[in-house]
Amino acid sequence: MSRIVCFGEIMLRLSPPGYLRFVQANSFDVVYGGGEANVSVSLANYGMNAAFVTRVPENPIGDSAVNELRRFGVDTQFVSRGGDRLGIYFLEKGASQRASKVVYDRKYSAISEAKPGDIDWMAVFEGASWFHFTGITPALGDQPAALTLEALKCAKEMGVKVSCDLNFRKNLWSPVKAGSVMGELMQYVDVCIANEEDAEKVFGIKADDTDISGGKLNHGGYKKVAAELRRRFGFEKVAITLRGSISASDNIWAAMLYDGTDYYFSKSYPVHIVDRVGGGDSFGGGLIYALSNGYSPADTIEFATAASCLKHSIEGDFNHATLSEVKALMGGDGSGRVQR
Amino acid sequence: MSRIVCFGEIMLRLSPPGYLRFVQANSFDVVYGGGEANVSVSLANYGMNAAFVTRVPENPIGDSAVNELRRFGVDTQFVSRGGDRLGIYFLEKGASQRASKVVYDRKYSAISEAKPGDIDWMAVFEGASWFHFTGITPALGDQPAALTLEALKCAKEMGVKVSCDLNFRKNLWSPVKAGSVMGELMQYVDVCIANEEDAEKVFGIKADDTDISGGKLNHGGYKKVAAELRRRFGFEKVAITLRGSISASDNIWAAMLYDGTDYYFSKSYPVHIVDRVGGGDSFGGGLIYALSNGYSPADTIEFATAASCLKHSIEGDFNHATLSEVKALMGGDGSGRVQR
Amino acid sequence: MSRIVCFGEIMLRLSPPGYLRFVQANSFDVVYGGGEANVSVSLANYGMNAAFVTRVPENPIGDSAVNELRRFGVDTQFVSRGGDRLGIYFLEKGASQRASKVVYDRKYSAISEAKPGDIDWMAVFEGASWFHFTGITPALGDQPAALTLEALKCAKEMGVKVSCDLNFRKNLWSPVKAGSVMGELMQYVDVCIANEEDAEKVFGIKADDTDISGGKLNHGGYKKVAAELRRRFGFEKVAITLRGSISASDNIWAAMLYDGTDYYFSKSYPVHIVDRVGGGDSFGGGLIYALSNGYSPADTIEFATAASCLKHSIEGDFNHATLSEVKALMGGDGSGRVQR
Amino acid sequence: MSRIVCFGEIMLRLSPPGYLRFVQANSFDVVYGGGEANVSVSLANYGMNAAFVTRVPENPIGDSAVNELRRFGVDTQFVSRGGDRLGIYFLEKGASQRASKVVYDRKYSAISEAKPGDIDWMAVFEGASWFHFTGITPALGDQPAALTLEALKCAKEMGVKVSCDLNFRKNLWSPVKAGSVMGELMQYVDVCIANEEDAEKVFGIKADDTDISGGKLNHGGYKKVAAELRRRFGFEKVAITLRGSISASDNIWAAMLYDGTDYYFSKSYPVHIVDRVGGGDSFGGGLIYALSNGYSPADTIEFATAASCLKHSIEGDFNHATLSEVKALMGGDGSGRVQR
Amino acid sequence: MSRIVCFGEIMLRLSPPGYLRFVQANSFDVVYGGGEANVSVSLANYGMNAAFVTRVPENPIGDSAVNELRRFGVDTQFVSRGGDRLGIYFLEKGASQRASKVVYDRKYSAISEAKPGDIDWMAVFEGASWFHFTGITPALGDQPAALTLEALKCAKEMGVKVSCDLNFRKNLWSPVKAGSVMGELMQYVDVCIANEEDAEKVFGIKADDTDISGGKLNHGGYKKVAAELRRRFGFEKVAITLRGSISASDNIWAAMLYDGTDYYFSKSYPVHIVDRVGGGDSFGGGLIYALSNGYSPADTIEFATAASCLKHSIEGDFNHATLSEVKALMGGDGSGRVQR
Amino acid sequence: MSRIVCFGEIMLRLSPPGYLRFVQANSFDVVYGGGEANVSVSLANYGMNAAFVTRVPENPIGDSAVNELRRFGVDTQFVSRGGDRLGIYFLEKGASQRASKVVYDRKYSAISEAKPGDIDWMAVFEGASWFHFTGITPALGDQPAALTLEALKCAKEMGVKVSCDLNFRKNLWSPVKAGSVMGELMQYVDVCIANEEDAEKVFGIKADDTDISGGKLNHGGYKKVAAELRRRFGFEKVAITLRGSISASDNIWAAMLYDGTDYYFSKSYPVHIVDRVGGGDSFGGGLIYALSNGYSPADTIEFATAASCLKHSIEGDFNHATLSEVKALMGGDGSGRVQR
Repeated sequence: MSRIVCFGEIMLRLSPPGYLRFVQANSFDVVYGGGEANVSVSLANYGMNAAFVTRVPENPIGDSAVNELRRFGVDTQFVSRGGDRLGIYFLEKGASQRASKVVYDRKYSAISEAKPGDIDWMAVFEGASWFHFTGITPALGDQPAALTLEALKCAKEMGVKVSCDLNFRKNLWSPVKAGSVMGELMQYVDVCIANEEDAEKVFGIKADDTDISGGKLNHGGYKKVAAELRRRFGFEKVAITLRGSISASDNIWAAMLYDGTDYYFSKSYPVHIVDRVGGGDSFGGGLIYALSNGYSPADTIEFATAASCLKHSIEGDFNHATLSEVKALMGGDGSGRVQR
Repeated sequence: MSRIVCFGEIMLRLSPPGYLRFVQANSFDVVYGGGEANVSVSLANYGMNAAFVTRVPENPIGDSAVNELRRFGVDTQFVSRGGDRLGIYFLEKGASQRASKVVYDRKYSAISEAKPGDIDWMAVFEGASWFHFTGITPALGDQPAALTLEALKCAKEMGVKVSCDLNFRKNLWSPVKAGSVMGELMQYVDVCIANEEDAEKVFGIKADDTDISGGKLNHGGYKKVAAELRRRFGFEKVAITLRGSISASDNIWAAMLYDGTDYYFSKSYPVHIVDRVGGGDSFGGGLIYALSNGYSPADTIEFATAASCLKHSIEGDFNHATLSEVKALMGGDGSGRVQR
Repeated sequence: MSRIVCFGEIMLRLSPPGYLRFVQANSFDVVYGGGEANVSVSLANYGMNAAFVTRVPENPIGDSAVNELRRFGVDTQFVSRGGDRLGIYFLEKGASQRASKVVYDRKYSAISEAKPGDIDWMAVFEGASWFHFTGITPALGDQPAALTLEALKCAKEMGVKVSCDLNFRKNLWSPVKAGSVMGELMQYVDVCIANEEDAEKVFGIKADDTDISGGKLNHGGYKKVAAELRRRFGFEKVAITLRGSISASDNIWAAMLYDGTDYYFSKSYPVHIVDRVGGGDSFGGGLIYALSNGYSPADTIEFATAASCLKHSIEGDFNHATLSEVKALMGGDGSGRVQR
Repeated sequence: MSRIVCFGEIMLRLSPPGYLRFVQANSFDVVYGGGEANVSVSLANYGMNAAFVTRVPENPIGDSAVNELRRFGVDTQFVSRGGDRLGIYFLEKGASQRASKVVYDRKYSAISEAKPGDIDWMAVFEGASWFHFTGITPALGDQPAALTLEALKCAKEMGVKVSCDLNFRKNLWSPVKAGSVMGELMQYVDVCIANEEDAEKVFGIKADDTDISGGKLNHGGYKKVAAELRRRFGFEKVAITLRGSISASDNIWAAMLYDGTDYYFSKSYPVHIVDRVGGGDSFGGGLIYALSNGYSPADTIEFATAASCLKHSIEGDFNHATLSEVKALMGGDGSGRVQR
Repeated sequence: MSRIVCFGEIMLRLSPPGYLRFVQANSFDVVYGGGEANVSVSLANYGMNAAFVTRVPENPIGDSAVNELRRFGVDTQFVSRGGDRLGIYFLEKGASQRASKVVYDRKYSAISEAKPGDIDWMAVFEGASWFHFTGITPALGDQPAALTLEALKCAKEMGVKVSCDLNFRKNLWSPVKAGSVMGELMQYVDVCIANEEDAEKVFGIKADDTDISGGKLNHGGYKKVAAELRRRFGFEKVAITLRGSISASDNIWAAMLYDGTDYYFSKSYPVHIVDRVGGGDSFGGGLIYALSNGYSPADTIEFATAASCLKHSIEGDFNHATLSEVKALMGGDGSGRVQR
Repeated sequence: MSRIVCFGEIMLRLSPPGYLRFVQANSFDVVYGGGEANVSVSLANYGMNAAFVTRVPENPIGDSAVNELRRFGVDTQFVSRGGDRLGIYFLEKGASQRASKVVYDRKYSAISEAKPGDIDWMAVFEGASWFHFTGITPALGDQPAALTLEALKCAKEMGVKVSCDLNFRKNLWSPVKAGSVMGELMQYVDVCIANEEDAEKVFGIKADDTDISGGKLNHGGYKKVAAELRRRFGFEKVAITLRGSISASDNIWAAMLYDGTDYYFSKSYPVHIVDRVGGGDSFGGGLIYALSNGYSPADTIEFATAASCLKHSIEGDFNHATLSEVKALMGGDGSGRVQR
């Protein structure tokens, strides 16, 4: 089976138990996650040959991050070891009107100090068919951005298909910087994934009235964003996730795929949230799986949306929904009846 | 007070904490439960003299199962000890579109290897007024089925009223086998409890359009099922539970009682689910309580439905709702205001 | 910054984890709380100089209560030490149709045996601008009632503004006794806080049809209650909280402020409940903050309601919502989107 | 099997997890226990027909205490319901040089307000062969003392053998009061259990140099205490437990039995402590079991000491060591090898 | 790096938290382990290419067992899927005089029903240098015994070195059956590992006075056992572990290696036990590592003993001591000073 | 009461529960601590007016650190807010031969980037009588070193007594750099605290044979170190802690005070370790308390040693032993008998 490569940062995530606030916590639940690592776990989970490339420190915290990826079937042979620390993010789970809160402590992480030459991309892409990255890695600093560019060039040379989730992070860089750096990287990208905020913040492409809280989608607005993204960067496909935030406890979740010809809208799911983090990444994982396995555009967007719908009911960054569960939901069974 | 006897399997139930999936679990919450044991706890909880008859191994896991029954007031003097193991079931709690999942590990359990002659039914039914069993026990094997038949004959001879919850389990036997075995046992049954699936799977009695997800009940469909069950087996009463699965987090819950003359429909409750397992059993417990205490048919179905509505908000298999709480809800107070 | 003084009982609160019932609990989560202590924490949390006055025993349980107040920035220098025990309340969290349940074990607590002369009110009110108490403290016994009266007289003499949350507790006294004792204390009160039940139980002032379960408010009923309270006791302001109990899991929450001229109704919030206890107290804390900081009446009621709306999503008695979070919700952002 | 009756207080015990101090605790582990209840559980655990008599409040905390006794096989049919509260004790587990710490909150408990006439002793002692009480119950107040006397008189009239553990509690009464009250009760006692401190505090009978920290026992000192107790009150048997406190983590544990003729010293056990509370009570349980089952004096003291040695390795007040485990240790196997 | 293959059963291990007894448990800690799996994790942990061969059911419990092996770096590509259930063992941790207790529930497990032909041994041993099994697998039944024989023949043909830990389990078979089956398998074994009990139970080879509780070793006794084992079966090397059980909390741990010429005794370690299970397996892992890496016999036995000494301080079946930690202890640093 | 000022870093400490290793952890216990913060809590705990000066980020993690200090009575009014992150350290608790392990992640912490001018030392030392710092703060970087020097100069000018715990950290700087920086700071120090390693690493002052594992102290070696420290830097007093590491579970603990005239050796305590971190800091806290309260040199060293002996039995960095507990142990009661 050909390899699917994901590249980026994996972080230690620390969360107060249940709905406790940071100031109430006497322990933190520990998981590991990050945009691209989350995609790699989704893919391994569906039985794909998924490899994750990153850099983690040579200490037990770095070991634990690698172990967690291995545990869920991700190939970690290309993980580089070095640097001072593993990035950390603190997550406080919200409820009702109280939003979930993320406190980042990722500065000076091992991957943020990685640089071109640190990774043997030729070896990484040997036998690979797909490369996935996000807008987070180049935002970590000029060196990670250069390293990403190096990866992209090598991938293209070796005929590897490339997907990118724009994933704008305002704490890491400004829209201006993001637009400039990402603009250059986009030329290597075949499949672009974005949400309604990313396209605007990174490339200034704004949808009209995309508020879906009420449950109704303004299809036209999303279509325009996808079309403009494709027009500007020549993407083969553009996928856009649509989130309606009713409250921290309840969301509406849907997505759209544009293949340059048609616009495919998924079913729209009302989700009662267990853990919303990694929702977008699980969409990416589902999308890459479906596209790698010859799904039709309509099935692709349904698979990716069903996969990420299920993620919202799962604790942690990783999507532990199984292939058969995603297919069952995609096939219409969202009744939640006990499976005996 | 006359004794109410429940007979069947009690299992060790192992669940990941909260909404964790099996593959994420580093500990399992431990409770004990099973269809008939759950009924016995409901009855003890309402102050009835409830005895549970089963067979558990002579080890600390068997001891713990017996202890848990004693803790909640069930008479365990007729529990037989022997066999290799206590049946186990693993339960993963679902949420939103992700269904709860049960993995059974009950083969070769002590009760599944029990056989006619193992239990002194004469002693068990001495002073008893009611005997309750379910379709699970005969499904455990030919010997437990024969043991059940032995119990039923003895009960009838001693003038004990009999109730049965059809409780079809597709992992344990086929519809054909179920229909054959259960068909024979039904002649001893006075009160039959079923849900919309049981009657179809066991006896091929299908209701038209009984989907109540939308909250609307097709009364006609349920009436036909109850009437046909009574026609075929001559039950004194037939009770049918009606579950509308909106998602793993939200259900609609209601029930109907048919006494051969009239059909009594309970109020319909929207339930926000804490733990859905044992919901049907708590209905059985409420039904037997109400019928044993001279409730009118209308009050009987309201009591049983209110009792089982409350169960959905309680962790574990057992229903720990109190008599006064059931009566309060039956009386209309479902506002959930803090009781100080 | 001038001091805001809260006076009353702080209790040890013991709760089974999650949604477990008392009879299932093998551990209790520990927090400390009480009507007036909760208000003091809210105020300290918003950066105010808040002092809490009470009496706790000279043992590690008393120490822990004081520590918890200090932890969240409350000035505990006036806490008196002595007596036999700290009051306790056991709280079982409800869900869906099952109500939360409080078992009080507060008799003979240190504060219930405090008496006039035990506290140096002159020192307490030196530099203070506001004094807050509730109907709970005088209900603890004749001595605490006398001590409250002593505090009120001293506060008035020293020009300190006084607020009171009527907070009727039926386990502590009868409506008749409450009406008599509270009636006398009301003459010292400037700002009266009540819910729909308090005014009726304590002073026999009944609103017509104030059921807001359906989400619709009968404004007229609440206006009449506020107007009558003001007429009878000459309050400067009257604030009334409006709770619609759909179930133990879902409530509607809103409030009204009457300043003798106009009636200001807040937005109405659908709240998905994490912990409902202390909801009213967090309203009081928000109200005092807003009034102490020169908010307009309309902004005051929006601030207090938003603050207490957020409390429902926070575990424990204390409201750990921050000033900026309250302002954001008051400003309209209740979407619960992840804050990164 | 004839009934063994234990009478006294059962309390809710609240302990910080592990070795946390009270001021660090965010949760308390919950068990139930008390000197006489602990004895009843030991006896039920060895298969005896043990009944516990007490009074607990009519609330879920009282229910939970009763449930816990039932869970471990104790007959609770004579438990009286009423009163305001269940007594509580807070326990902080010590280690090394830091002592375990108990904070009592037992005043005004249901049993402390019980009075003569509250219990139908004739029914309790019908078919009973043994009655066990301790010096704690009469120390709870004059009424419980009178109730104890009432029980003793009835027991004697009905030919029931009586044992008493002196169990002096300095927080409950003075040595003078204890000596006076207990002195009167002793006339009904057949078997007296004491430790080195009790005899001195209650009756002023002091052993010379009974420090066994070094591991060496001054047999002579203990013999004199036992002989003097027997001389004064005419006990049939006197048992004395010998504890050498090396630290909160390590103790030496042994005991002696005097039957008026000979002095029987048990083996001396070095114990690594898991939970030391209830150690003396488990000795009492072992003693009553052995004496009720015709053990020789030498075997009796070995059984009781082995039973209580094992208790020190078990969490909670109750001794969950099994009959076969006690016999194995009594037989010399204290190697702790894994039992597969 | 050449592959080291371990073959056997991996079980779900369920343990009450801390020192709770089974009858007190409301949750079980979950780990996975088994004699041969434990060896494979030790080897992976030291950086070896370790593969584990077994059969687990196609369900989430089987998935979790595989995941846990992967997490710690074991190659699971040869794990066969099928069968009804994963074997379970319940473990209650002992302390002081109370022994740890294991309740097995492993009958009918997937591996116990595996049979010759189920595993492609040619593929497994391709590129392998070592094969490790224990006396547990052939004890699971005639089919697993035949499967083991099949593996051994294939290993020998492919020039793979073979080690066996005798590991007698009295619940699984009798000494007579064990002697017969194991006797045949021994002809394929190069390195034999045993403890003082195994040699006696399986082959009737009894050491004189090998009690090392007092800390003194009777070297002669162990030498005779090793020499006799070698004489009978022609092993290249025989390793014997020496455990002195002072109590469940404290043991003495040492070992001996015999290479046909000399007897090498390791240092003797007093161990304060955190988790004693897997102690012998971690010795096997250390032994195979040292022998595979060209250690001298003296260093080999010191490495293996130091590795297994450290295991006793680690929770779970697996030994998570690192290579550098083992070397440091082997080098003499057992002071336990904080490593910063 | 005059203020005692402690200055340094407070860190978030993350520890796997119990004895789990980092690679096994799914949650971390959370406490806050650091050498100087630990001293300030000890002092507040004994009733002193203790203030802690540091710099923490303006986020909920920084808030939590401040809250924890307030909780235990430390004055935090001089805590500066700013910078990117709170320093973190991961702690894995060792047992038996396995050492506790610390992984630091403290680079770029808020305090490590503080610089002269950031703190208003005049305000800090207004009304202060004592200033305590350690060798950790100047090791954090040149700026913190300069800030420390600034503090020392101001302290001296304002007549504040100064103590320093040398506390060498090899991860932060080299012995050469430490010797140079600390050498300059020592001129402002009145009381020097060190252990056997610090004096050697920082100033090259080596004791002969100070290994006290065997329990015997080489008094001569320690005397020479103290005398040489005093000779070189003119300290008023030198205190040296003596730790004998038998294993990670058991240590010997003692200390010596030299006042330029006499050498005072404390009792030597065998400690069974619950949490060894902060042991030295609790010694410092005890020393400052005793010296500030006019204790004799002999009593001073006994108080400080008893205080820190107790710390080893307490979880977390902070010493929660009370004044009366320290005095009791100092007075000879280390038997660990239950305090009721």
